[in-house]
Amino acid sequence: MSATTEPTALISLRERLAELSDLGSIGSLLFWDQNTMMPPAAAPARAEQAATLERIVHGRLTDPGLADLLDALEPWVADLDPESAEARLLAVTRRDVEKAVRVPADLAAEITRASALGQQAWLEARASADFTRFRDAFARQVDLRHRYVACFAPFEHPYDVLLDVFEPGLTVAELRPLLERLREGLVPLVRAAADPPDTPRHRLLDGPFEVEDQRRAVSLVLEAVGFDPDGWRLDPAPHPFAQSLAQGDIRITTRYDRHDLGSALYAGLHEFGHGLYEAQIDPAFKRTPLGEPVSLGIHESQSRTWENLVGRGRPFLGWLLGQLRESLPGGFDGVGADDLFRAVNAVRPSLIRVDADETTYNLHVVLRVELEIALMEGRLEVDDLPAAWNAAVERLLGVSVPDDAQGVLQDVHWGAGMIGYFATYTLGNLAAAQLWERVRRDLDIDAQLARGEFAPLRAWLAEHVHRHGRRYTPRELLVRATGGELRIEPFLEYLEGKLVAAGRLRAA
Amino acid sequence: MSATTEPTALISLRERLAELSDLGSIGSLLFWDQNTMMPPAAAPARAEQAATLERIVHGRLTDPGLADLLDALEPWVADLDPESAEARLLAVTRRDVEKAVRVPADLAAEITRASALGQQAWLEARASADFTRFRDAFARQVDLRHRYVACFAPFEHPYDVLLDVFEPGLTVAELRPLLERLREGLVPLVRAAADPPDTPRHRLLDGPFEVEDQRRAVSLVLEAVGFDPDGWRLDPAPHPFAQSLAQGDIRITTRYDRHDLGSALYAGLHEFGHGLYEAQIDPAFKRTPLGEPVSLGIHESQSRTWENLVGRGRPFLGWLLGQLRESLPGGFDGVGADDLFRAVNAVRPSLIRVDADETTYNLHVVLRVELEIALMEGRLEVDDLPAAWNAAVERLLGVSVPDDAQGVLQDVHWGAGMIGYFATYTLGNLAAAQLWERVRRDLDIDAQLARGEFAPLRAWLAEHVHRHGRRYTPRELLVRATGGELRIEPFLEYLEGKLVAAGRLRAA
Repeated sequence: MSATTEPTALISLRERLAELSDLGSIGSLLFWDQNTMMPPAAAPARAEQAATLERIVHGRLTDPGLADLLDALEPWVADLDPESAEARLLAVTRRDVEKAVRVPADLAAEITRASALGQQAWLEARASADFTRFRDAFARQVDLRHRYVACFAPFEHPYDVLLDVFEPGLTVAELRPLLERLREGLVPLVRAAADPPDTPRHRLLDGPFEVEDQRRAVSLVLEAVGFDPDGWRLDPAPHPFAQSLAQGDIRITTRYDRHDLGSALYAGLHEFGHGLYEAQIDPAFKRTPLGEPVSLGIHESQSRTWENLVGRGRPFLGWLLGQLRESLPGGFDGVGADDLFRAVNAVRPSLIRVDADETTYNLHVVLRVELEIALMEGRLEVDDLPAAWNAAVERLLGVSVPDDAQGVLQDVHWGAGMIGYFATYTLGNLAAAQLWERVRRDLDIDAQLARGEFAPLRAWLAEHVHRHGRRYTPRELLVRATGGELRIEPFLEYLEGKLVAAGRLRAA
Repeated sequence: MSATTEPTALISLRERLAELSDLGSIGSLLFWDQNTMMPPAAAPARAEQAATLERIVHGRLTDPGLADLLDALEPWVADLDPESAEARLLAVTRRDVEKAVRVPADLAAEITRASALGQQAWLEARASADFTRFRDAFARQVDLRHRYVACFAPFEHPYDVLLDVFEPGLTVAELRPLLERLREGLVPLVRAAADPPDTPRHRLLDGPFEVEDQRRAVSLVLEAVGFDPDGWRLDPAPHPFAQSLAQGDIRITTRYDRHDLGSALYAGLHEFGHGLYEAQIDPAFKRTPLGEPVSLGIHESQSRTWENLVGRGRPFLGWLLGQLRESLPGGFDGVGADDLFRAVNAVRPSLIRVDADETTYNLHVVLRVELEIALMEGRLEVDDLPAAWNAAVERLLGVSVPDDAQGVLQDVHWGAGMIGYFATYTLGNLAAAQLWERVRRDLDIDAQLARGEFAPLRAWLAEHVHRHGRRYTPRELLVRATGGELRIEPFLEYLEGKLVAAGRLRAA
């Protein structure tokens, strides 16, 4: 992007976009702080602060002066390569503006306020394992989503409008058959590979390890894979997440369980993958909409790459075991890397999505997407949600839900109003496996991971995924990086291969 | 403030003010985060975020629509009691608007950006004890202050404009003689009460105590005096400060020195005093300019009340010793409350303001105010500042400055551009002593503190100081609470009395 040839309207546009980017970063700080640092009594005030910020962002994004600048630049951009950064910047900005102007400012602010308040209602309801205490807050979220969806009429399916918030361009027409075929592939695989229900859990990472020792051990692993203490933070959070405020301000979280080092370790690797994505976006896109992650599906493909493709693979586990023996002396006597490989790849249908293994995980997503579509189609009432949840868990996973905290109340998303989000977890799992096929072709990845060499993988991901930001659509990005559209086969093949290698499945 | 009789213009005004209040809280979060949590590499991005926020605040405050609402309300407010909350709300808002419109938006944003960057330059310069590395950043701050001052011409003295930022209404004409008389009172007092230069420091709080043990002990003390974990936070920070985002979101910091429990304890009590002030402002003023502290001088009077009037007084120390014996077992064997009283009231001229004792402290302020006035009058050049600093320390305190880190670079304020701030520390010390005279008359305070009963003092401060927010000017507030204007005598009498009681000064 050469400054010398830029029309003045583009310079003005960039100033406005830089301001919007700063406000986005500030919003990220409000969210991060609320979920790590904020005293509980601050929740109502924080909801107002977030709503005020959203009102300002919405006001700036829908300001006619911004649309005028885009119009003024139309003739100029018509002469550019449509894939050039400048052309894409204008296209992405126009998309954001056109979506924002559909939504009244009051509704946008109300959605933000309800999100902060809904999270608090969810926290309290989950603590008492009582859906009825969450019911009104959730009904409010569903109502707000219906009002939001109505702003985008006409549409093929109301849920399309919600999917687009998180995965631009994704539709029910595309998603439903994908999930259906995935379910058909997974259910028999789970049946074949799962431990019998009363098998004791593998205990290789169970310690107990003191939280402070875990924190140190996990930090060392993360610093080895690419966490830079000068520009990153690691904090504890009950529901781990990553938030990037700027390229030198990447904040990830994990959670600690004295009796499960795996919880802190794998949540840490997962959030590291999210952080690395945003840390490696082309700095030339800084403070523009191109400098943002392209979609949550692609985002999740990056977290899953480090958590699962790297973190639960045999080569990495050999290196990891050496690290853990040093940082947690005595904790891994008599444990071999093959034992660890088998342990972290157990298959067991369970209640909690975030604790689910790779094989059963996507069934948790299928469950949520089915329920969300039913809610948005009006086929399911909020009051009937817990019963529908419990029935679907029984049907898909074959386990019974003992209470709402381990069932319908387990995720923060609905409290925060994030309906349409869950599908991106599965898209991420699929995309990660599809990208990994290409990684295997381009790099000597197994040998590198076994030696603890992570720079080549980081560089590959930067080149093929991270640096592009929002320059390409999620679909374009995947086709450029892997040569094809999103498919379920790479994921199923990867999974079967690993389950066989870990001694959990007989080779077909 | 009854809503039923409010004109619609007032309702509109309140909406705008609530938004400005939210933006102020968000700005506080940016500052708190930068000084406690933010990774160092984020500093440039944070400077942009803060500048963007400031530009928006400035734009909203100078928006003609806001001034129009104030104008529209003039006839209505003319019929109100001029001391009513509504009348004061309009007066305070008009004052804020009239000040904001004088300053161009670009200058306001530039001041904010330079503040974030200047703090970073200061950090680096202090680490290498080299003023030349700070010189340019500071020269930029001085230049920005001259530009800011010029916006308020005509004025009696350029420094008046800067004082008004922190202490509304304060002038050089008033401040200079006050500091001069104070200096005349303090210099002989220091000479009479100071330990000889080679006396070893009292070691009663020297431990060593592990940081985690100190954190727990200090937290217990703070919770006893009124820190509420549900709505407050305590974090470590190299330069302790307090920041209030909302009434349920009070954040204080302290610092830990393994060899000085007093550092964490007294910084904690100091910042607690700041936090309590903002926690106890009338909730009816929430999200309006009346819901803010009235001045930094009054703010400092509250921190000094808890740090010194309470915290270094004999009654409190008796209670404290019992607490510390429980929370740090073995650390206080053979120590009596009178020993502690004598130890924490030592007088010794020293280099670092924040470590200075109560008796020498204000001489550090006199020094800074003299230099700032000389800078703003153009009598002192930035390059000559270190030499001028060192000479003034020798003259006022009789000690030699070994390097810039222990001299001119010791405070963050100049890096952040806060010229005109230091005087408020002395105003706070004076006001605290003057308020304390009244506390002693109204409460059985010594007996209460000796028993660890802090609720009566909290309630007294809420009633006479805290709840009013910005409803009265600092001067009005002090006259209402103490019956008179600010004087130096209550402070000097309090100090002499305590030094005599602690065996540091012979009774006159």
